[in-house]
Amino acid sequence: MEAKLKELKTRLHEINDLNAAAAVLGWDQSTYMPPGGAPARARQMATLSRLAHEQFTDPAIGRLLDALRPYEESRPYDDDDASLIRVTRRDYERLTRVPAGFMAEFQTHTALSYQAWTEARPRNDFKAVEPMLEKSLDLSRRLADYFPGYDHIADPLIAFADYGMKTADVRRVFDELRQQLVPLVKTITAQPPADDSCLRQPYPEPMQWQFGEEVIRRFGYDFQRGRQDKTHHPFATKFSIGDVRITTRFQENYLAEGMFSTMHEAGHAMYEQGVNPAYEGLPLASGTSAGVHESQSRLWENLVGRSRGFWEYFYPRLQQVFPDQLGQTALDTFYPAVNKVEPSLIRTDADEVTYNLHVMLRFGLELDMLEGRLAVRDLPDAWQAGYRADLGVAAPDNRDGVLQDVHWFAGTIGGSFQGYTLGNILGAQFFEQAVTAHPSIPDEIRQGEFGTLHTWLKTNIYQPGRKFTANELVERVTGGPLRIEPYIRYLTAKYGQLYRLA
Amino acid sequence: MEAKLKELKTRLHEINDLNAAAAVLGWDQSTYMPPGGAPARARQMATLSRLAHEQFTDPAIGRLLDALRPYEESRPYDDDDASLIRVTRRDYERLTRVPAGFMAEFQTHTALSYQAWTEARPRNDFKAVEPMLEKSLDLSRRLADYFPGYDHIADPLIAFADYGMKTADVRRVFDELRQQLVPLVKTITAQPPADDSCLRQPYPEPMQWQFGEEVIRRFGYDFQRGRQDKTHHPFATKFSIGDVRITTRFQENYLAEGMFSTMHEAGHAMYEQGVNPAYEGLPLASGTSAGVHESQSRLWENLVGRSRGFWEYFYPRLQQVFPDQLGQTALDTFYPAVNKVEPSLIRTDADEVTYNLHVMLRFGLELDMLEGRLAVRDLPDAWQAGYRADLGVAAPDNRDGVLQDVHWFAGTIGGSFQGYTLGNILGAQFFEQAVTAHPSIPDEIRQGEFGTLHTWLKTNIYQPGRKFTANELVERVTGGPLRIEPYIRYLTAKYGQLYRLA
Repeated sequence: MEAKLKELKTRLHEINDLNAAAAVLGWDQSTYMPPGGAPARARQMATLSRLAHEQFTDPAIGRLLDALRPYEESRPYDDDDASLIRVTRRDYERLTRVPAGFMAEFQTHTALSYQAWTEARPRNDFKAVEPMLEKSLDLSRRLADYFPGYDHIADPLIAFADYGMKTADVRRVFDELRQQLVPLVKTITAQPPADDSCLRQPYPEPMQWQFGEEVIRRFGYDFQRGRQDKTHHPFATKFSIGDVRITTRFQENYLAEGMFSTMHEAGHAMYEQGVNPAYEGLPLASGTSAGVHESQSRLWENLVGRSRGFWEYFYPRLQQVFPDQLGQTALDTFYPAVNKVEPSLIRTDADEVTYNLHVMLRFGLELDMLEGRLAVRDLPDAWQAGYRADLGVAAPDNRDGVLQDVHWFAGTIGGSFQGYTLGNILGAQFFEQAVTAHPSIPDEIRQGEFGTLHTWLKTNIYQPGRKFTANELVERVTGGPLRIEPYIRYLTAKYGQLYRLA
Repeated sequence: MEAKLKELKTRLHEINDLNAAAAVLGWDQSTYMPPGGAPARARQMATLSRLAHEQFTDPAIGRLLDALRPYEESRPYDDDDASLIRVTRRDYERLTRVPAGFMAEFQTHTALSYQAWTEARPRNDFKAVEPMLEKSLDLSRRLADYFPGYDHIADPLIAFADYGMKTADVRRVFDELRQQLVPLVKTITAQPPADDSCLRQPYPEPMQWQFGEEVIRRFGYDFQRGRQDKTHHPFATKFSIGDVRITTRFQENYLAEGMFSTMHEAGHAMYEQGVNPAYEGLPLASGTSAGVHESQSRLWENLVGRSRGFWEYFYPRLQQVFPDQLGQTALDTFYPAVNKVEPSLIRTDADEVTYNLHVMLRFGLELDMLEGRLAVRDLPDAWQAGYRADLGVAAPDNRDGVLQDVHWFAGTIGGSFQGYTLGNILGAQFFEQAVTAHPSIPDEIRQGEFGTLHTWLKTNIYQPGRKFTANELVERVTGGPLRIEPYIRYLTAKYGQLYRLA
């Protein structure tokens, strides 16, 4: 049995090495690669991914997993080896369900679709990508059908990112949340908007960079096991538990962009840096779901980084870095500025209250398309109608409308968006739990100390990696299921105070 | 036949992708990787190299090569497909001769030996690495013995780097060269040394960087298909013909280090950038030997970059960049400074006249060890004796003596050094040929124009990639074999003028 487990781990290490290499190539492509490298790089990454996929779907893996079942069942559920076998089996069953030929067709299509999107968006040309989206929808349905027995056709697609979450559950949670959010947004937007002009001044990039890195170093992001570089679209990426990198971008005339992007990606990266080092190179060694991952990025970005307590400590420091820009601006002006609520067109620029309306709208449109209630050709109008109804805004064209997000053009229709809002909900739930366990946390944040919070997150969220599903993790950590109440409490308290609501 | 050729190419592309990925990981390790990434990175690179090796030594490759032999023989020798099959067969036969078990033993040993060297060198502790070197010598002999039928035991080891060159040939060429060089060095060092104090002032790194990139851009290094980064030890590395990068290092108090390192690595990189794009991802797509590669780096660094004509154009520009340091220094002072000849201890810092004495000394010691005429324990004394005899200098300790170069501690004993001096010889031979074909080249260099030279090199040296061996290439380009006369003519003319020799 020991020999079989060892062989399984050896094979998994090799697969991990191929995937890690592909991740390094992807990072390099986004950061430093010269333009001439692009054609060969695409082929190199495809080769690595294909080899990793071939090796993971090798029937030898299936035989090892079968042989190891008695061993797995003889050990506690949360035993490291038992969990490794269980999670590996889940991955194996998912990957082997989908024929290699279909995967190749799907990947070829998404590469073309992505390319078409990059050209169509600047030209505001929805018609150019409409046939691509039609095919994406067809392929997404066919992909789901490799997992028969679902309650809803989106279930298998959601399971890729948020295993254990079903369409019906997500829909129920989102409906509840919407009932609370829509009136809150209405009430807030009836007030005069916050003045964020203090953020919209020239902020030289090197000082933005320096301040951002100072903050995340204090959070606990480990630069001995990571680094930050510049990219067009910020992301976090992991090559090993000892090498988890982030990227960011800056606007010289808008302070919030780079600063909060850095905190956000550091949240993702701290999660990956915090996984139990014993899992290195194995399937347990990463975040457990899109939603839980996003809970960590949003927790550090918003619940910490946009909190009053955080700025009580860091605002004087920021004023030192930018004396000309902020020397005369009071914290009572700056704090509302970084929390300005305003219905807008672009999801990634949205404030934390309206953000979820963007997400839920996309989630609803995905379901409508998958259920056949919405045709792709009618998507632009449905998008516009949704924005008018939920946010009261209308995009002047499709560029900032249905063409704004890459997701549907580079992956499945279904399963791509729910994680963002699940993350907001879970972030608040976890944070409330941490503060319940350690009531000193808010005061510590006010003193620029994050050790208690970071340690609690490491112990409870980061270290298990993928050992527990998102639902299991929430249950273990909070003693119950995912609940929106902590998030609503958080928003109501914070924005009630900011906008002097009843 | 077409299907077999296609299958061969598909397999070779995949092997190339694995090797290219390993190269990206190696580049990242030397440039940007945080320290925490090291353990996993070593494993990832080993996995990629092992998979590439396994795939290349797959008997299916052998069968394809056999099946393609009639096709190969039906085509001209310099036909692209025939050359691909021929060169691939040469690689296949070399790799399959060596058992996988031996390769693993060898790689494990060199990893340990390299590690031991990094620790022993700062401590000046030859005894700590002596057993490592003993084993390296034993393994080098065993490696050679997998290629029976050699004239000299070093032949197979030399063939890894400089295919087609035999020990006896190299020895004869080196003996001839030494007979010319030793008296030249004696005559030069009898004169008062050049004053290079103008190079030894504070030169801020950003301006060194900017000037270096300006020069190599003018040479023809294509930044759309490459980039420069900083490392501890400069190198050039290729991920595809469209992505060939260089690294450099600077000394803030010595201008020559970074400037000539940049030109040197750009020479290597321009070779790789200039290979026929049709060979992308196949074994033909790289430089043909260590010697020919070094001929290109040394040609651009020395024959161009240390020439009087080059500086007639670029020195006024350099004075603009560093007015405080060089504004009052005449070209007649600067030009001798960058060509100062002085026997010294460190190979990589040596001038272009004495440099070959360092190389030939190492080559001789390798042969002595392989032939059993020199024991590893006596190597430090033999090293010191050689330096005293050939260069008239003695290292105060082994740190700058036998421990100075990584080669023997990270690879074979035998075959590691000859390429450096072959490169100096070939560089002069090629350059003379280029000038014979285009007598305007020296005048163009004097005007900061390198197009004619670069185009000649692309057409004659770069484009064929590995289609021709070094010997074949020299024959095709110069109409005869490798000859030291052009190099001697070059050195005698240049240093005769510089040191006013008869």
